[in-house]
Amino acid sequence: MKLIILFGGASFEHEISIVSAITVKEKLQNNFELEYIFCDQDHTFYQVPADKMKSKTFSTAEHKKFQKLQFSQGCFSFSKMFSKGEIIGTVLNLIHGADGEDGTISSLLDFYNISYIGPRTDASVFSYDKRYTKMLAKEKGINYIKYEILNNKEQRDIEIPLPVIVKPVRLGSSIGVSIVKEMDELDYALDVAYEFDSNVIVEPFIEGVKEYNLAGYFANGALHYSIVEEPQKQEFLDFEKKYMDFSRSSHVSQADISDELEIKLQNAFKTIYTGMFEGALIRCDFFVIENEVYLNEINPIPGSMANYLFDDFSNVIEDLANSLPQKKRAQVTYEYIDSISKAKGK
Amino acid sequence: MKLIILFGGASFEHEISIVSAITVKEKLQNNFELEYIFCDQDHTFYQVPADKMKSKTFSTAEHKKFQKLQFSQGCFSFSKMFSKGEIIGTVLNLIHGADGEDGTISSLLDFYNISYIGPRTDASVFSYDKRYTKMLAKEKGINYIKYEILNNKEQRDIEIPLPVIVKPVRLGSSIGVSIVKEMDELDYALDVAYEFDSNVIVEPFIEGVKEYNLAGYFANGALHYSIVEEPQKQEFLDFEKKYMDFSRSSHVSQADISDELEIKLQNAFKTIYTGMFEGALIRCDFFVIENEVYLNEINPIPGSMANYLFDDFSNVIEDLANSLPQKKRAQVTYEYIDSISKAKGK
Repeated sequence: MKLIILFGGASFEHEISIVSAITVKEKLQNNFELEYIFCDQDHTFYQVPADKMKSKTFSTAEHKKFQKLQFSQGCFSFSKMFSKGEIIGTVLNLIHGADGEDGTISSLLDFYNISYIGPRTDASVFSYDKRYTKMLAKEKGINYIKYEILNNKEQRDIEIPLPVIVKPVRLGSSIGVSIVKEMDELDYALDVAYEFDSNVIVEPFIEGVKEYNLAGYFANGALHYSIVEEPQKQEFLDFEKKYMDFSRSSHVSQADISDELEIKLQNAFKTIYTGMFEGALIRCDFFVIENEVYLNEINPIPGSMANYLFDDFSNVIEDLANSLPQKKRAQVTYEYIDSISKAKGK
Repeated sequence: MKLIILFGGASFEHEISIVSAITVKEKLQNNFELEYIFCDQDHTFYQVPADKMKSKTFSTAEHKKFQKLQFSQGCFSFSKMFSKGEIIGTVLNLIHGADGEDGTISSLLDFYNISYIGPRTDASVFSYDKRYTKMLAKEKGINYIKYEILNNKEQRDIEIPLPVIVKPVRLGSSIGVSIVKEMDELDYALDVAYEFDSNVIVEPFIEGVKEYNLAGYFANGALHYSIVEEPQKQEFLDFEKKYMDFSRSSHVSQADISDELEIKLQNAFKTIYTGMFEGALIRCDFFVIENEVYLNEINPIPGSMANYLFDDFSNVIEDLANSLPQKKRAQVTYEYIDSISKAKGK
């Protein structure tokens, strides 16, 4: 099966997308015919040879020598004076953050009729912006942590008592995130977050809260869940730690939780996923407080596709690739224009 | 000022988009340097000469002889053996329904860095799917009509007492919409709606409800409202009536309502618009029940841009074109890859 790993993007998470792509390559190259397409920060696409899939290729701009690609109906293509070609296959969208997770890439792939693993546009919008994730949780009856939204044009008072966690509303990977324990740290935390977004979300920071991650996907008529992971405890992941996290490829062990809690986590996952995330392998990060499950965030393109949470990752991707949603295009008949033209006698 | 009217699309509203574009051309051609770009149902773009802006051009497929265009960074472009060219300007997105209003075209224009009048991707997702419009109203504290969602895989019982109105969740322009007054009409109404979407929304049909339309846009630091229109009363607009409606160009008169109600409508509009619809001229359709304002629907690309609700439509479009939101692209520094490469000593 041919699979196109699409990575890069004009995103603060550009570099971790490269790391993700290299990790996923290692996990899939024995079972798939892989192609690699890099989206540069200026939105030019390049075809990357397998042996050039190293982070240095991109940081040294060596990729600019590779074949440029563009979108065509049903494929990526190139045409030069004496050659042209097409890359046809299912895309694995590995662009984290802006472009990849905000609905842009999904819209492009849909428009050009290229099948892809990854969130559709609606799913992207609801998971990329933390305000809309809260709305979704509310709508679906899933618990969520209370929050306040601040805008960089408004005053800087918060009502939630300290300590709080301050995040840009539209970024992942801990970029621009701060924990505020003393009131005199708030201004700086807001300034940091406003560097990345004009809106920030403030939530209570719950010391020692139990955190569990669960990934899953819909294929062959059913939802399939990963094991539940209790992520390594640290105050929170800074970007450099998270960066290393995106290169994870060793299988982890199931968290030591009761069957009852596992089922609760799976049920919450199912409620969030169903009717919106079909076509994607997502990871939901939950908090558990007094035995109740709270949604923390949805990662619709988790770092290195959360490969380390599945036993047979190649099989997961193959199943998913064979179960992608089909988008129907409307048929245009010109029935109304014809009937009106006739009525007008012209 | 150069303005590119983009119309067509692979949408059930393809034909009314053509009608809208022809109407807007008539209203703007004296004050703008206009270009016309047609998106065919197969997603090919064509440059249409001004004198060919007639519905028959498209229903007879004459447009297939025109210059094909593609997206490039900052423009639409073409290249042939001995010629190439670019069309640079602000796009007026006039693609109604799928493609234009579902977040696809906005994503393409953002990706290729082309400025445009029309809803951004988030705004499109929230206005195109009636379920998300209800969520938005709920979140923002705007009244909405109660509703039920049915899925074509589930049973067909409804709880809302008759009469009800049945709509596909994701279409505009009255396509697939039925009023059900007797229970034995429900099955057929659902079948009709399921032709267009796998989800339908059922709402109470309120006989004789007062309906008011209000358009507006953000420019030069402030929201600008149109007059309030009380649309012509009919049970509801079928597609053919709506079709004619998209060619409206005569100014209508302000509805006979109190100043108090007008302000209520404007306040509801402002609450919905702010923070989401900047860059677009939208029309909100409201119901008024016992002097309270209820959101019925949001048209983020109203038929013929609701030109008939504004005194000086050219001026409206010019102001809006000069106040479009700017999307910032993340700068990629390769700081982390560089520091990790150094740490590894390679």
